[in-house]
Amino acid sequence: MAKDNLTAVLYGINDIRLEQRPIPVPKENQVLLAMDVVGICGSDVHYLVNGRIGPFVVEKPMVIGHEAAGTVVQCGKAVKHLKVGDKVAIEPGISCRMCSYCKSGSYHLCPTLTFCATPPDDGNLARYYVHDADFCHKLPSNMNLEEGALMEPLSVGVHACKRANVQIGSVCLVLGAGPIGLVTLLSAKGMGASKVIITDIVQHRLDLAKQLGADQTILIEKGMTDDQIVAKVKQLLGEEPTISFDCTGQEQCVRVAICATKSGGVVVLIGMGKFEMTIPLAGALIREVDIRGVFRYCNDYPTAIEMVKTGRVNVKPLVTHHFKIEETEAAFEMAKSGKGNPVKILIHANPNWTPSK
Amino acid sequence: MAKDNLTAVLYGINDIRLEQRPIPVPKENQVLLAMDVVGICGSDVHYLVNGRIGPFVVEKPMVIGHEAAGTVVQCGKAVKHLKVGDKVAIEPGISCRMCSYCKSGSYHLCPTLTFCATPPDDGNLARYYVHDADFCHKLPSNMNLEEGALMEPLSVGVHACKRANVQIGSVCLVLGAGPIGLVTLLSAKGMGASKVIITDIVQHRLDLAKQLGADQTILIEKGMTDDQIVAKVKQLLGEEPTISFDCTGQEQCVRVAICATKSGGVVVLIGMGKFEMTIPLAGALIREVDIRGVFRYCNDYPTAIEMVKTGRVNVKPLVTHHFKIEETEAAFEMAKSGKGNPVKILIHANPNWTPSK
Amino acid sequence: MAKDNLTAVLYGINDIRLEQRPIPVPKENQVLLAMDVVGICGSDVHYLVNGRIGPFVVEKPMVIGHEAAGTVVQCGKAVKHLKVGDKVAIEPGISCRMCSYCKSGSYHLCPTLTFCATPPDDGNLARYYVHDADFCHKLPSNMNLEEGALMEPLSVGVHACKRANVQIGSVCLVLGAGPIGLVTLLSAKGMGASKVIITDIVQHRLDLAKQLGADQTILIEKGMTDDQIVAKVKQLLGEEPTISFDCTGQEQCVRVAICATKSGGVVVLIGMGKFEMTIPLAGALIREVDIRGVFRYCNDYPTAIEMVKTGRVNVKPLVTHHFKIEETEAAFEMAKSGKGNPVKILIHANPNWTPSK
Amino acid sequence: MAKDNLTAVLYGINDIRLEQRPIPVPKENQVLLAMDVVGICGSDVHYLVNGRIGPFVVEKPMVIGHEAAGTVVQCGKAVKHLKVGDKVAIEPGISCRMCSYCKSGSYHLCPTLTFCATPPDDGNLARYYVHDADFCHKLPSNMNLEEGALMEPLSVGVHACKRANVQIGSVCLVLGAGPIGLVTLLSAKGMGASKVIITDIVQHRLDLAKQLGADQTILIEKGMTDDQIVAKVKQLLGEEPTISFDCTGQEQCVRVAICATKSGGVVVLIGMGKFEMTIPLAGALIREVDIRGVFRYCNDYPTAIEMVKTGRVNVKPLVTHHFKIEETEAAFEMAKSGKGNPVKILIHANPNWTPSK
Repeated sequence: MAKDNLTAVLYGINDIRLEQRPIPVPKENQVLLAMDVVGICGSDVHYLVNGRIGPFVVEKPMVIGHEAAGTVVQCGKAVKHLKVGDKVAIEPGISCRMCSYCKSGSYHLCPTLTFCATPPDDGNLARYYVHDADFCHKLPSNMNLEEGALMEPLSVGVHACKRANVQIGSVCLVLGAGPIGLVTLLSAKGMGASKVIITDIVQHRLDLAKQLGADQTILIEKGMTDDQIVAKVKQLLGEEPTISFDCTGQEQCVRVAICATKSGGVVVLIGMGKFEMTIPLAGALIREVDIRGVFRYCNDYPTAIEMVKTGRVNVKPLVTHHFKIEETEAAFEMAKSGKGNPVKILIHANPNWTPSK
Repeated sequence: MAKDNLTAVLYGINDIRLEQRPIPVPKENQVLLAMDVVGICGSDVHYLVNGRIGPFVVEKPMVIGHEAAGTVVQCGKAVKHLKVGDKVAIEPGISCRMCSYCKSGSYHLCPTLTFCATPPDDGNLARYYVHDADFCHKLPSNMNLEEGALMEPLSVGVHACKRANVQIGSVCLVLGAGPIGLVTLLSAKGMGASKVIITDIVQHRLDLAKQLGADQTILIEKGMTDDQIVAKVKQLLGEEPTISFDCTGQEQCVRVAICATKSGGVVVLIGMGKFEMTIPLAGALIREVDIRGVFRYCNDYPTAIEMVKTGRVNVKPLVTHHFKIEETEAAFEMAKSGKGNPVKILIHANPNWTPSK
Repeated sequence: MAKDNLTAVLYGINDIRLEQRPIPVPKENQVLLAMDVVGICGSDVHYLVNGRIGPFVVEKPMVIGHEAAGTVVQCGKAVKHLKVGDKVAIEPGISCRMCSYCKSGSYHLCPTLTFCATPPDDGNLARYYVHDADFCHKLPSNMNLEEGALMEPLSVGVHACKRANVQIGSVCLVLGAGPIGLVTLLSAKGMGASKVIITDIVQHRLDLAKQLGADQTILIEKGMTDDQIVAKVKQLLGEEPTISFDCTGQEQCVRVAICATKSGGVVVLIGMGKFEMTIPLAGALIREVDIRGVFRYCNDYPTAIEMVKTGRVNVKPLVTHHFKIEETEAAFEMAKSGKGNPVKILIHANPNWTPSK
Repeated sequence: MAKDNLTAVLYGINDIRLEQRPIPVPKENQVLLAMDVVGICGSDVHYLVNGRIGPFVVEKPMVIGHEAAGTVVQCGKAVKHLKVGDKVAIEPGISCRMCSYCKSGSYHLCPTLTFCATPPDDGNLARYYVHDADFCHKLPSNMNLEEGALMEPLSVGVHACKRANVQIGSVCLVLGAGPIGLVTLLSAKGMGASKVIITDIVQHRLDLAKQLGADQTILIEKGMTDDQIVAKVKQLLGEEPTISFDCTGQEQCVRVAICATKSGGVVVLIGMGKFEMTIPLAGALIREVDIRGVFRYCNDYPTAIEMVKTGRVNVKPLVTHHFKIEETEAAFEMAKSGKGNPVKILIHANPNWTPSK
């Protein structure tokens, strides 16, 4: 087996280093993966810039990366559903499988969940990585590993849409057209939404949203009031959205989501912003508009994969930039600065990867 | 038939008058009711004192009263499930029965719903009153009309508990031990909650809550912080509540509800307070604590009646004071002032009623 | 207004007559419709041939037809959501709107439901017809009246798929590729099913199913055992179906549905066959395979219309033959005999209709 | 530690032997239990008499017993929620925790589930036994180990009632008043059923049912037709049951369940009888009466324990006879013959147990 296990390690604020680490050995229920693609997520950048997200603090060097896909190169002896050569999307959270959350189908709320690149747990931006086999999802033959890596953000969109019970006839408002807004848009359309209207403060993101299937877009301009935005949403839709997704974490967007949504509808909160918000809660109460949060995903990878496999969703347009693992620092620099209008940046850990011309 | 149809009419702020009105004639799908008992609700007092609740303004004289029960004295010709002499609890909202909300089992959200004593619709504090028969719920033989009138607030509690999916094993926090907090407590216990802890700022309400089945009580003292209350809740319960009900409309209580509730749990908002609130929304998001409002009730009267009929719930201790319809002003005076610590005040429209000694 | 109200009336077994009837006048909540298209359903043929379906007996002349669409020509004064000129799909069942089924969102189970062309209620194969406005569904501008008439069978498929909770990832087995099997196939694909395999005993129906989106087909040959069919299903799918729909009413198909379905899955029964069946019930019990029936539809027209409007479903290929209302007898003759392999036969009540060349 | 590990082993048909076995050693996630009480279940008797149940064949000596409770005497090092001295109810099925059933909250359908005393897996009628700690449920201080052992059958009743969505207002028909019928009765009442009517062919079982809370009982006499039983049920209830539970596995009872249940209701099948049954399936289809099976339980032990802990359910009257483990053969003899009208027979593995006088 190869000796090269180049690994991207976050040592502290603005301090990512590439280093060689030993190739790990899979336990009974694990697989060793030759890593192929790892996407950069907003949370990765957040750890790089701030060294923490809320209570999660980078206190010792941590391997970065959690939107990943790779190829099985070795199986633990108890692994049955995978074999060497299988391509898999890696679900980065590993639950205890024994608590009441795990037993009842909400393993994402397991209090002892570990999660790639959430301190103190290592991520998987490396040449080789071991992961519990039951959290590796085999990709069908018509999907490649880049799509595999995108199953992580897509699963967030899927989870949000399941929480909202998106179905035929749903009229959706998506606030924010960043990566999470876009995967929510894709999931909503894939799961049957009749119409999706999406907002952002940047036109080029709305253009991409349009390309990905948004029925309508709204460019939010500086100084627009809640009421103006709500009015615009209703006017363009010709009705009230039955479901609104906040993918920004901005107070105004949450306010708009609550005010715009039809009585009996749902507001789903995906974007994390400041901890406290001032919102028109009575407006939700009196019209029985439910407010539901989204924490990652749970049993959503299979749905995400099905949507791509069956052609209901095309995630490829989300990818705007590619880097080699050796260029990790440059990749994160672009993610941080936003220069070049990146949407999804992929880092290739596979030494054989070459940029397409 | 009698000629006396003494009726309590709200003419404006602090202006309730008793007057004779013609006895109405039931239409095809209606029944004429000899009214017996009408409870005073906080909203009645609100209209009396402020002349409005939010967008609902008393612009012309309005009969007051909506927590009511009476006896059928005449049936419209299409009425089949009721007959003269039946005692009924009156569900005060009448929906259009034709819109998509009505067709899909959410008639309380019907945009053209009329509702007793919500302007401009008349209520039923009178000797005689007509109501659509399908919103009159026949009382079983082991329930009296006072209990019948209490089915209105109890249905709010039932609706809140259904929204929260209270079941065996639910651990409930009820914030506020006023009438709505108490019916929520009763409903939660009736529907299987394992434990209910209830808070208030007034000890005698907590004493009543204890008598009604609360497992634990917390007297909220001036200056207690959110964290202190949350800590107290967890300490007394020995665990986190899976469901929290705000029955106060107070910002602090909503904040406590969100922070105290177990991951994956539910916060139900029943109490209407100020329109905007500053709340730790991210704490709900990240732990997938759902926030659900309660707007009145829908298909809940039958459940409320069943709970009383089968002895799971005893609503009688809620009633603290009785008045004759002729004493309506005094009854409202007590409701307004709170003197005598009223919980539920009943007004008797039946001319034959006499106070028990 | 026109005087011609040619109407197709079933007088008894094999006795359909065309006759002039007065143009009806809409009541307050009704609309008068200029009828355009009425499809022939298996139940229509059943009444024609047998004079009854179970307890429903044609005891007096009954207007035939219930898969219909038309144009509003007059509105009752209380009608608000429709106006003259609107094209509508007609939902043929009218519920009481007041019983507990109607109040709780299951109006199709209303015990006093009336239903077009189910004795003793008249159907709508006529030039003019009045219907309760709240059961007339306005068609969007991109749908025509032929599609409108097809919303009736499509709603059966939608209802079946909702009962089964079809979603992304569902693997469906549809037994029977007649009209009901085909609308179930269309609905399942429209609502997100990953794969649909469909069976029939006639190849040309399977060919149409393939054209409509079936992923796989199985021609059931005489003498095939349950086990052989189940084995074939699993072999072709490479897995067990999570949902099986019986659209035949044949005992063998119900047996296959139960045996083939994955543990924890659902068998939906749509086809009505003989009243009693011998089935391997213990196999369903021990694997918690639920068995759910489908009785028409409820709140499903809007979903059916959305699926066509948004292009998720194309119902046009279902239509194989057209007749004028004057040719009603010939149309039913074809439906009865099956000569020409009809799938869906449409009868045109609009006097201006001409066959496309 | 003690050396005595007397163990009851089924060697073959009518061949149970007591023998000493080594005291097992708990693995990391296991606990060693000093066994206290083990109830006899119908399936135990079935293995004793027939050597098999369906595909499960006793091919090598198997420890019998699976309705059990004991005391923790040693903890594996990874065990956190239990400590030495804790009394626990033992959930006898152990799932893989990794497959899609386990991940999505349906671990009872896990294809690699092992289950005490289902061949080839050993049961726990012994002095000492090790079990995975996450399937040991700590008993509250107000419950004893006899009640603990009864949590196994009670969980079946709980699972059945959850499958049926029993709630306030449910009107239940329970067919069969054996142990499973009785725990279903107890669960239904505990979960809020308004009325439960129960049938049996033996009067003394109905007497016990009455004592346990049945509102009405029907003694089924030889030769009664389906229609007669259905009529009797409706007459006594004054309405149709919304939920019917078959706890007999008898064809007639399943037929009655389907015919008696209200439109839109649920038939739950718990009793396993012959594999094929002839039933009036169309009657279920046309009235949308769902048919749902019950396979053991899943996440139901906590509910069962809560019901007893909070006093909603009293399981003690189910126990009619006690034996020491040394008397295992006599205990099974009684279970087999039915002499003495046993309902639940408990075998005491604790050497210190003495019969109460």
